Amino acid sequence: MGLREDAAELDASDPLAGLRSAFLLPPGKIYLDGNSLGPPAHRVLERLDAVARGEWGGDLIASWNCHRWIDLPRRAAAKIARLINAAPDEVLVADSTSVNLFKLIAAALAMNPGRRTILSERGNFPSDLYIAEGVASLIGARLKIAHTDALEAALDDGVALLVLSHVDYRTGRLHDIDGMTRLAQARGALVLWDLAHSVGAMEIDVTRAKADFAVGCGYKYLNGGPGAPAFLYVPARHQDKARQPLQGWFGHGAQFAFEERYRPAAGIARFQCGTPPILSLAALDAALELWDGVALAEVRRKSLRLTELFMRAVDEYCAGAGLRLLTPRIGDRRGSHVSYAAPEDGYAVMQALIARGVVGDFRAPDILRFGFAPLYLTHAETVEAAAILGEVLQSRAWDRPEYRARAHVT
Amino acid sequence: MGLREDAAELDASDPLAGLRSAFLLPPGKIYLDGNSLGPPAHRVLERLDAVARGEWGGDLIASWNCHRWIDLPRRAAAKIARLINAAPDEVLVADSTSVNLFKLIAAALAMNPGRRTILSERGNFPSDLYIAEGVASLIGARLKIAHTDALEAALDDGVALLVLSHVDYRTGRLHDIDGMTRLAQARGALVLWDLAHSVGAMEIDVTRAKADFAVGCGYKYLNGGPGAPAFLYVPARHQDKARQPLQGWFGHGAQFAFEERYRPAAGIARFQCGTPPILSLAALDAALELWDGVALAEVRRKSLRLTELFMRAVDEYCAGAGLRLLTPRIGDRRGSHVSYAAPEDGYAVMQALIARGVVGDFRAPDILRFGFAPLYLTHAETVEAAAILGEVLQSRAWDRPEYRARAHVT
Repeated sequence: MGLREDAAELDASDPLAGLRSAFLLPPGKIYLDGNSLGPPAHRVLERLDAVARGEWGGDLIASWNCHRWIDLPRRAAAKIARLINAAPDEVLVADSTSVNLFKLIAAALAMNPGRRTILSERGNFPSDLYIAEGVASLIGARLKIAHTDALEAALDDGVALLVLSHVDYRTGRLHDIDGMTRLAQARGALVLWDLAHSVGAMEIDVTRAKADFAVGCGYKYLNGGPGAPAFLYVPARHQDKARQPLQGWFGHGAQFAFEERYRPAAGIARFQCGTPPILSLAALDAALELWDGVALAEVRRKSLRLTELFMRAVDEYCAGAGLRLLTPRIGDRRGSHVSYAAPEDGYAVMQALIARGVVGDFRAPDILRFGFAPLYLTHAETVEAAAILGEVLQSRAWDRPEYRARAHVT
Repeated sequence: MGLREDAAELDASDPLAGLRSAFLLPPGKIYLDGNSLGPPAHRVLERLDAVARGEWGGDLIASWNCHRWIDLPRRAAAKIARLINAAPDEVLVADSTSVNLFKLIAAALAMNPGRRTILSERGNFPSDLYIAEGVASLIGARLKIAHTDALEAALDDGVALLVLSHVDYRTGRLHDIDGMTRLAQARGALVLWDLAHSVGAMEIDVTRAKADFAVGCGYKYLNGGPGAPAFLYVPARHQDKARQPLQGWFGHGAQFAFEERYRPAAGIARFQCGTPPILSLAALDAALELWDGVALAEVRRKSLRLTELFMRAVDEYCAGAGLRLLTPRIGDRRGSHVSYAAPEDGYAVMQALIARGVVGDFRAPDILRFGFAPLYLTHAETVEAAAILGEVLQSRAWDRPEYRARAHVT
C-alpha cells in the first residue's frame, strides 16, 4: 500500500483523533513545531479571558483567595505529575526551565558535599549548560561536558550531579532514563533530567527511574503558551534536605507572616521564588486539562507511528536529495521529533518549506527539525509534509535570496 | 469647607481624571489596593486576546519574529525607562522581582571584591531580605540588617552593597534616594533600589541619583496584571562589567547560534535568563502604553493630594477609634499608600471594610494599608473610604466571627 493510503487508514483508527478539534490550528498549515511552541486549545483562550476579565477585573486582589491563584502553581503541577508518574506534591510549576535548573543544580551540589563536578553531555541544550556553568562559577564548582560515549567514563568520584536531557533537542535521541540514573547513582552522583522534549509526548516514570530531580517546559508538548511557566520535580525523599538559593517569599514557610528571616516551606513549596505570572500560568493550567483521560501509552504509540511514517515518506519523496537522518530509526531510542542535516543551506530550505505551509524549524548549523505532537497531528499531514519537503529539495525552490536571508531569529 | 466639598472640587479640576475610564473597575468598590495589584485597563484585555488568539493561535512559532515577541522584554522596558528616567536600554523586563534581585545582588558582590556584606534595613520587604540572605549563604557573604537610624553607622568598609526599598511596603515612608545613594557610595558601597512601591506613583530619577542598580514590580502601580514580569535597571556604566549567574540562553550573546559556552550578550540583554512568559508580558506592555503622555509630576501631585485628603478624612471620621498613623504626614517623606496600626484585630477590621466595598489590605501584625493609585482613583472615593472606615470602627462592625476567621492568605 502507498504512504497516503497507510496514512488514511492510520487516521481512521487513531484513538486520539478526536483531540485535534480541541485546538485552534491555522488553516492551510501543517504544524510540525509543536515541540517548540504548542498551539492554543480553545479552552485555553476561554480560560485566559475568564481569568483576565472575570477574576482579575472582577475581583482584583481578592482573586488570590477566592479564585485560588495562590495555589495555582501546585494545582497545575498536580496535572503534570500524572504525566511523569510523580506524586502531585512532588512537582511545582514555577519560573522558567533555566531558572528552575539553577535552583535544582545549586540544591543538588549542596546535597552532595565533597564532590564539585557537574557532568553534562556535549550537545545538551545550551541553556542547560550555561546555567550549570553559572552555578559552578558562582560557588567554585566545575562543569564537565562529555561526549555521549564518554559519559560513563566521566562519572568519577568527583561528580556531584549528572544533568542530562531526556530527549536531545536536535537529534531526538532518547536517553534510557532508568539505566543512566542507576549508573550515575551507583557512582555516587545525583541525577537531574530535563524533560523539555519528552513530557507530553511519551510515558515518563520518574518514580520508577528513581530520578533525583527533573525540570521541564510548559510551552512545547504541554501547549501552555509562549514562555509558559516551567516545572520542576523533587521527590519526597529529597524535599526536606534540599535548599535552593532563590529563596523568595513564595517559598517561605509562612509567607504572609512577613518574618525577617527565611524559613523554607515544608515540601515542594520551598522551590517557589517570587509571585508567579498568573495569566501565563492559568493558560498552562487550562492546557493541562486536555490530558484528562488521555492514555500516555496511546500518545507514545501515535508519536512513534507519526515519526516512523515521516521517515518512510522522506525516504520516498526526498530520495537522492542528500538529507542525512540524525534521529534514531529504532523507536525505543527516539523522542517525538525527527531531524535531518541538510546538504546545503538548511536555513533556506526551512524558510521555503514554511512558505509552503509546512512549519518545522531550523537549528544551527544545518538541521531541519520536525516535531510530531500526537494530540493534534494527523498521519495524512505527516505524509504531505514529507512530499512538500521533497518538492522543495528536488526543485531547489529554496535557492532564492528571500529564503537565504537570515531575517529570522528563531 | 467640608471634606466632601473639597473632594468634589479636586475631582473637578483633576488633570488625570480622564484616565479612570481606561480601566475596568468593578462597580460598588473603592479599590485602595492598587499598590498590591493594579486593575486591568481595557486595552490590556484587548491586547491579551489579540496576542493569544491572533498571534499565538494565528502565527504560532513565527510570532517570535513576525510579532517581535523576541524583543518584547526590551520594548516593555523602554516604556518603564521613562518612568524612572533611565535610558531605554538600561532597563529590562524579566522574571520576578525576587529573581531579578538575586541576579543583581550576585552581580554587585562580584563587582565589589574584598567586601562581603550586604546591608539592608529592618522592615524591608521580606522577599528582598530572603533573597539577599540566599545569595549571601550561597557564596559566603553575609547579610546585615540595620534599623533605619543605624544604617549610616552600619555602612562600614565591609559593605559591598546596600539594598533598600524606595518606599516602605508597610509604612509608606519614602527614602531620599539621592542622599542615601550618595552616602553609601561615598563609603564604597554599591546601591540597589527596590522601586516596587514607588514606580508609577511618583517621579523617579535613577540617573540623577546615580543608582547602581534597581528592580521593580510590574503588577502594582504599573497595572501589568497578577504576577506580571518585573523589571531591573542597570546603568550603561555598569553593564559590561556586571555578570549575573542566572545565565540562561536569552542572555547569551548569540542565542540561536547554540554555542556550548556562555558568552554574555552586550548590554542589558545579559540580564535575561529563560524564555519570558509572553502572555503576561504582553499584558504588562499594553498596560504601560497608558503612561504615554502622562506627566509624572502630575501623578505625584495627585498622589500627595489623595493621601493627604485620606489622612484628614480619617482624622475626622475615625477620631477616638484608636488608629495610629504609621505614614509620614510630610509629603516629601511618603509614597502613595497610607497605613494605620489598628487598636484591635486589624485583620477583622479589613475584612469588614472589604465586605463594605472598601478594598485595602492587611499586613501583619496589625496594619491597615490603603493604596492610592493616581491614575484611576477619585478624591470623592478617598473621602468615602475614610467615612466607611469610621463607621466600621465606631460601630465595631468588624467584631464578628466571619471577619475574625483567618480564611485569607493574602
